[in-house]
Amino acid sequence: MKLYFDLEKLIDERRFNFIRDGLEDVEPADIAGMVEELPPEKAVVFFRILPKDMEAEVFANLDHDMQKSLIERFSDKEICEVIEELFLDDAVDFIEEMPAAIAKRVLAHATDETREQINKLLQYPDDSAGTIMTVEFVHLKRTLTVAEAFTKIRKIGPDKETIYTCYITDAERKIEGVVSVKNLLLAEPTEILGDIMETHMILVHTDDDREKVVKLFEKYDFLSMPVVDSEDRIVGIITIDDIIDVVQDEATEDMQKMAGMLASDKPYFKTSILGLTKNRIVWLVVLMVVAMIIGGILENFEGAIAALPILTVFIPLLMDTGGSSGSQSATMIIRGMALGEITPRDFFRIIWKEMRTGLLVGSILAIINFGRMWLTYMNHPEHGPNVIPIAMTVSITLLITVFIANVVGGLLPIAAKKLKIDPAVMAAPLITTIVDGFALIIYFSLAVWILGDLMATAA
Amino acid sequence: MKLYFDLEKLIDERRFNFIRDGLEDVEPADIAGMVEELPPEKAVVFFRILPKDMEAEVFANLDHDMQKSLIERFSDKEICEVIEELFLDDAVDFIEEMPAAIAKRVLAHATDETREQINKLLQYPDDSAGTIMTVEFVHLKRTLTVAEAFTKIRKIGPDKETIYTCYITDAERKIEGVVSVKNLLLAEPTEILGDIMETHMILVHTDDDREKVVKLFEKYDFLSMPVVDSEDRIVGIITIDDIIDVVQDEATEDMQKMAGMLASDKPYFKTSILGLTKNRIVWLVVLMVVAMIIGGILENFEGAIAALPILTVFIPLLMDTGGSSGSQSATMIIRGMALGEITPRDFFRIIWKEMRTGLLVGSILAIINFGRMWLTYMNHPEHGPNVIPIAMTVSITLLITVFIANVVGGLLPIAAKKLKIDPAVMAAPLITTIVDGFALIIYFSLAVWILGDLMATAA
Repeated sequence: MKLYFDLEKLIDERRFNFIRDGLEDVEPADIAGMVEELPPEKAVVFFRILPKDMEAEVFANLDHDMQKSLIERFSDKEICEVIEELFLDDAVDFIEEMPAAIAKRVLAHATDETREQINKLLQYPDDSAGTIMTVEFVHLKRTLTVAEAFTKIRKIGPDKETIYTCYITDAERKIEGVVSVKNLLLAEPTEILGDIMETHMILVHTDDDREKVVKLFEKYDFLSMPVVDSEDRIVGIITIDDIIDVVQDEATEDMQKMAGMLASDKPYFKTSILGLTKNRIVWLVVLMVVAMIIGGILENFEGAIAALPILTVFIPLLMDTGGSSGSQSATMIIRGMALGEITPRDFFRIIWKEMRTGLLVGSILAIINFGRMWLTYMNHPEHGPNVIPIAMTVSITLLITVFIANVVGGLLPIAAKKLKIDPAVMAAPLITTIVDGFALIIYFSLAVWILGDLMATAA
Repeated sequence: MKLYFDLEKLIDERRFNFIRDGLEDVEPADIAGMVEELPPEKAVVFFRILPKDMEAEVFANLDHDMQKSLIERFSDKEICEVIEELFLDDAVDFIEEMPAAIAKRVLAHATDETREQINKLLQYPDDSAGTIMTVEFVHLKRTLTVAEAFTKIRKIGPDKETIYTCYITDAERKIEGVVSVKNLLLAEPTEILGDIMETHMILVHTDDDREKVVKLFEKYDFLSMPVVDSEDRIVGIITIDDIIDVVQDEATEDMQKMAGMLASDKPYFKTSILGLTKNRIVWLVVLMVVAMIIGGILENFEGAIAALPILTVFIPLLMDTGGSSGSQSATMIIRGMALGEITPRDFFRIIWKEMRTGLLVGSILAIINFGRMWLTYMNHPEHGPNVIPIAMTVSITLLITVFIANVVGGLLPIAAKKLKIDPAVMAAPLITTIVDGFALIIYFSLAVWILGDLMATAA
């Protein structure tokens, strides 16, 4: 699939026909990859020698930086050609990412019709069905015969993103039914669309969240789904290939939020140091403030710490284990909600399940910890005599902390959902920090209670 | 879309025709949802009154528990009907999840041909292309005309999962080309498939990892892709609707691993307390042992802690902030690799980027921390006079810790990938624990160095 010669050199030598022959069987997505590896001034030359019918598809597959470089070097006529040939959803995607000056120049060279359609698509709310739909689809009248439908599809098909699902619409573009090309092929040529169409349809509104759209595609295994406006007129369709991108984007965003970052769909290497810093610093400052407050709790126990500094040795154990447990249950719940397997109505079932799991996990860890502390310290010159109460203090704290961590990890994402906050922010960093606070309070309270006499002796 | 009457009551009253009428326009996936809400003995009655042509599709949409309940109640003849009607990939999916006794009974009632095909599919390695393909696809000979191809598609189409992409194969089932129904519709009826087929194809092997398949679908926007065996004969196809499930599964698995759990594709409520505990405890024990070792480091500093217990107050701040920073960069790298945006070859670029980001983030946090410590403690009766050196110690530790956290977070996932370990395990829990170790060593070493005189005075 690679061109086994130096493309850059061939461009310099202006061996354009030779290049064109080599590109014959190459997929547009792969050609886009080649364009991206060229310096912009050569990329534009290469782009110009592409077969005309391929230009738009290659362009749609380029990253935004290269799209920008090309547009800056294109003549007005070239801009017009590309924007008119692009599928509308690709065009909107591209214009959204361009700086205002370039977007304006591009729109200025589109035909009135294209410009109007693009502007309309640009107005839909972020992450709504409207932003991922395409307005190029096949719609047919219910009075057509199957044979007439095929004639129509043959005529308009080449410009449509998918022809396999056709929508039957009335004079006001209200959707009346749907036929697939499979249905048409299996029907007699003389049958009337109105008789064979499926009238029961799943459809989405332009303002529906794209996550809802994903769930419908997953459930019903459609190839495409109609999108209607507030007056139930069909305005576009969403095709399944775009859904995969949405699924990946949503998962990436959730992972970023779950790691305490602002979500960004920019690839890592396209994000500047300042951009990365901005995405990371916000939550870190919040968490730092929370951690400061938690640390402040320890000031009340300075006496205990001074008397028994060995207590400090077990702080990392308690903090890390508690935090990890909490983020485990939070992750299960956050992901379960994103996949629609868990809803806020399951609140009590989750708490009950997490309580039992937390108790079991906590008990196992507490027993292991007790055993290892006993083995490590039983012959210790200083701590040996007190190994049982010290190990008890740490192990009981561990059990309670893990229990609380599981419950808090299960509870916070659901609470967030109810409060219309994205549950994904209730993940590892925040829960770890909160659970750490509980762990320390429990630990030192227990220590003062169980080891109070010991501390008095030491002091 | 709901039946607005009590389905269970209608079944008890044996009003089967009434139910059947109500189901006319309901999607199989929704009927499956109704079946799942019935008690098993009524579910089987309900299932039996479904239109015959819908049974298999409804069955494929049921959860595994309900499939099992139904099979246990089915007659031999019913089992035979369902297994023969299921698409083969759905059948394999279902048999994989059944207990051995049930799987055996089901296979015993399949026809020889079906059983052979299922057994073959069951042999492919986990997560390979073979496990997600279907063997029901349209293959045509290159000598057919377009009109003949349509006749063939009409005849065999109803049993195939997709008819829109047809594969041209030779006598040995080697793949020669591909035509889409769109190509066929746009061609003249007399044209020969061999002349209009696309001969350049992207294909995958049965043993290829399904993540590779996902990347190809994402890149090329195909509706389906051919799967070939080691001798390049076509053995099946993968359709895009199954890819969405793979994408979700892979993201779920990665999130679970990133939260320090064993990956499981069982939904939360289907997993028992013991199952949840098993998935969670393994990593917790590993992390607990690491945290114990790290805690052990603190034993060397007991003197410093006893002399200046205020130092303990800042441990949560340093541990939480360091851990969160590390998991931020690890998440970016792990996800970037999963999406194919980052490869191990980018090692040095990543380290360089993370060093600069870490320095910037760390500096900002250190300055904020210094300011807030100075404000909090400057008038403190005991710590006021030493606020500058103490705040310096904490802030410098914070800066170094965040810097190291970013580098470690960027480095470990890549190192894992090079060692053929899943990068996703190098996420929050492990990195947090490792970074915590660094943080504590740096903190107390700095403290002894900067605050040594102060400690001597206190002691």
